[in-house]
Amino acid sequence: MTFTKEDASFMQMALEEAINIQDRVSPNPRVGAVIVKDNKVISKGAHQKFGDNHAEINAIENAEQSVKDATIYITLEPCSHTGKTPPCTDAIIKNKFKKVIFAMLDPNPKVSKNNSVQLLQKENIDVSYGLLENEAKEINQPFIKSIKTGIPYNTAKWAMTLDGKTNTFSGDSKWITESSTREHVHQIRSIHDAVLVGKNTFENDDPSLNCRYDITSTQPYRIVMCSNFKEEYLQSKLALFQDNKTIFILKDKPITDFEEKLKEHKIAYILQKNNLTDSLKQLLSFNIQSILIEGGSLMMGSLLDENLIDYVYSYIGTKIVGGSGSSPIAGQGIDKMNAATHLLKQNLISFNNDICLHGPINFYE
Amino acid sequence: MTFTKEDASFMQMALEEAINIQDRVSPNPRVGAVIVKDNKVISKGAHQKFGDNHAEINAIENAEQSVKDATIYITLEPCSHTGKTPPCTDAIIKNKFKKVIFAMLDPNPKVSKNNSVQLLQKENIDVSYGLLENEAKEINQPFIKSIKTGIPYNTAKWAMTLDGKTNTFSGDSKWITESSTREHVHQIRSIHDAVLVGKNTFENDDPSLNCRYDITSTQPYRIVMCSNFKEEYLQSKLALFQDNKTIFILKDKPITDFEEKLKEHKIAYILQKNNLTDSLKQLLSFNIQSILIEGGSLMMGSLLDENLIDYVYSYIGTKIVGGSGSSPIAGQGIDKMNAATHLLKQNLISFNNDICLHGPINFYE
Repeated sequence: MTFTKEDASFMQMALEEAINIQDRVSPNPRVGAVIVKDNKVISKGAHQKFGDNHAEINAIENAEQSVKDATIYITLEPCSHTGKTPPCTDAIIKNKFKKVIFAMLDPNPKVSKNNSVQLLQKENIDVSYGLLENEAKEINQPFIKSIKTGIPYNTAKWAMTLDGKTNTFSGDSKWITESSTREHVHQIRSIHDAVLVGKNTFENDDPSLNCRYDITSTQPYRIVMCSNFKEEYLQSKLALFQDNKTIFILKDKPITDFEEKLKEHKIAYILQKNNLTDSLKQLLSFNIQSILIEGGSLMMGSLLDENLIDYVYSYIGTKIVGGSGSSPIAGQGIDKMNAATHLLKQNLISFNNDICLHGPINFYE
Repeated sequence: MTFTKEDASFMQMALEEAINIQDRVSPNPRVGAVIVKDNKVISKGAHQKFGDNHAEINAIENAEQSVKDATIYITLEPCSHTGKTPPCTDAIIKNKFKKVIFAMLDPNPKVSKNNSVQLLQKENIDVSYGLLENEAKEINQPFIKSIKTGIPYNTAKWAMTLDGKTNTFSGDSKWITESSTREHVHQIRSIHDAVLVGKNTFENDDPSLNCRYDITSTQPYRIVMCSNFKEEYLQSKLALFQDNKTIFILKDKPITDFEEKLKEHKIAYILQKNNLTDSLKQLLSFNIQSILIEGGSLMMGSLLDENLIDYVYSYIGTKIVGGSGSSPIAGQGIDKMNAATHLLKQNLISFNNDICLHGPINFYE
């Protein structure tokens, strides 16, 4: 299908609508829509909150004039099934749109089964898609990966010294980067459904794993992967939250006594499976599609060894410590440098003294 | 002493003359000079080659009109002693300059003993100094450190993966960065008097340690720090050069047989002292003021532990390997993160996919 330069610029606007939403909408995708009549934008809309209106409906409702014979640009195929809200194809037909252009097909089997394209074409609506498709896929990687593979999308985040260490030989890691750089991590937390650490990081650092600085109204889940639940964990910061958003991934089922205490503290637990992939798959039932993994190096190593790292944020300070401190990723590792995993796209953020290199390792179609 | 905005801009020009020279002038400092008359630059000059004219003399010779009553801006105190060339103060007096402004005093005791300032003032020349003093010191750190401490200035250079490793668990390190990034290393080599590696890097990589890509006409010395000289080293790349610019720093004096072979191959050797500092001090007798240390991590660790790393180039690729590969700096290391060594100033170079963070750790006044 061919598109004009104007089409691309309207679709870009729709993408920006999707990107600029206030909070996470998972397990739904991020979607934006723009309505154009006589080559002028007459309305815009986005899906703002899980359970609320889809982007198309918000764009239609935001229009201050009739949308009859207009073109609607949507970043995702409009739904044709009844979920939390009625099908968007119905609204498009009812409002007599002349043309629908969307960026990517919906990988959700519920949608693809109903075939929105045929439904709309049957009503003589001109439908085309594939415009800025990669860009649309890029902003919904966790949604696509979860739907297509059943595994959450995992982002690895670490801070290291200029000589590649996450702590000194004695284990001290406070602080590698400046406070303004560390504030940025809270923004990164806010765009994920969950924050996860391994046992050592949990026991050594007792982290809160929440978003501070009023960045989000929807705190991510806090997850700890460890062998067994211990009495002392009930004195940890996580045990204080009591908001049903703390999950332990345990090797063995806790003894009855502990199970009761976990319930009292509103801490959930799931059991580890044969491998990390299967363990993480269970988190989809909590609507967790994206996880920010914050360490430690053993946890990161296990993830890399099972090709479970999809995106990386590497914060690099200008301190140098030498010695035998940890590297960000341990595990088995990759044998040959030319077979190394690498960023598909490199993004650079400069802070006062620190930098952050970030980018995707996997791309889900 | 007070200076005008114009003074600063003329001194900046003199600094640029010093920076833009073609090759190294060590053991001399880098010096530039600008001659100004009626607020107009009438001539510029720099010290281009060890043994040749000083910057002042080149600026005077480059002038196409009389320099009488002019002001000369020099990045370093003019010399008042006869070295390889006659004293610059004589030329300044003879050419009847009205005013001399220089950036920094010469730390060389031969110069300071003669007191150029008094010499010139006695001839009624207006002399002031201290303008852009730090900037002038910055471009001559190896000169200042060598003169003041008797120890060469050491720059540590490494390439590491995005997860802080200089090789994979099996020791493979080819290549962490792209070829265009690696070309930049040859530029960095060209601004140093010597390139040094430890035993492991020498034995594992058999590096040439020379400047390629026609960057310099004056190859740096190639230095290897190792315990004893072995027969097999005579098959190494370094043994092929035979240009009197290869030095081994050995723990023990080689047996007579080897000593003969070293002579045949025009390979010099010196003996290690009690510590690394004393070992490196000996290199000043080869006119080596600046050394680029290229690894490995044990060598870097020993340097850091003796506070011998003065400047760092950390090349960071976007590959990720996990596992147990080496970190750029081993050694004893620093205990607490808040006591870590750090870059005093951070410079960032972006290559296609890689970046380089570089900056000084020590500053010599």
